[in-house]
Amino acid sequence: MSSNQDISKSVIFPKGAKVLNDHFIGAAYLELLNPRENTLNCPIGNVTFEPRARNNWHKHPGGQILLVTGGKGYYQEEGKPVQVLSEGDVVQILPNVKHWHGATPDSWFTHIAISTNVQKGDTEWLEPVTDEKYNILK
Amino acid sequence: MSSNQDISKSVIFPKGAKVLNDHFIGAAYLELLNPRENTLNCPIGNVTFEPRARNNWHKHPGGQILLVTGGKGYYQEEGKPVQVLSEGDVVQILPNVKHWHGATPDSWFTHIAISTNVQKGDTEWLEPVTDEKYNILK
Repeated sequence: MSSNQDISKSVIFPKGAKVLNDHFIGAAYLELLNPRENTLNCPIGNVTFEPRARNNWHKHPGGQILLVTGGKGYYQEEGKPVQVLSEGDVVQILPNVKHWHGATPDSWFTHIAISTNVQKGDTEWLEPVTDEKYNILK
Repeated sequence: MSSNQDISKSVIFPKGAKVLNDHFIGAAYLELLNPRENTLNCPIGNVTFEPRARNNWHKHPGGQILLVTGGKGYYQEEGKPVQVLSEGDVVQILPNVKHWHGATPDSWFTHIAISTNVQKGDTEWLEPVTDEKYNILK
């Protein structure tokens, strides 16, 4: 799993289909491992980012948990330094905390995203992480 | 990850500590990836079973989702045939469905267990899966 080639194919769970909405910069892929439904109330997605790909700033009214399964990525909460993530890392995103996540410039990045307390409402999408801000991260 | 030796060490997430309660036959290991708390309401455990190890029959009042990360395992719901699980499989365990899971006789088995709707109550533990029943599974 050391090369970008390997991780872009799959890290345990399928890479899924390219995300087509406007909440990402660069190519990201989503495989839904558990759908949004009203019995388990726990949507789970396997998300893969190509190098430099990232989602816009956003908030989850009910929170989210990330389980990193491969590659190297960034996670940042508003007003805090960026965190560099790799395989085995776990991120607890508390409700309504403004944040973004994505790949580093030189690596693919894959995580499982588990949405929590989904009855509290849908993700609130905000402004993009500009190249100007992304390019100076370390 | 093909040998038992490899998978017994770790599959992405740490193997954790040996489970010391009476709800298992054989050795199982648990690493808590997210604790039980009242903000995200989503306990997540990485569970590793040695060959032949399995939990007792049980029910989750709020349900549970299993993400299989390595090895070969069994999952069975009451009154249904056993399912053989391997890397990449996802199991949706609906609320109050009586079931058990564990390793096959010849392989370690690792899954992430995500507890859902935890406000509905704690796991209800029931009788063991006897050797008599386990030994005839295929």
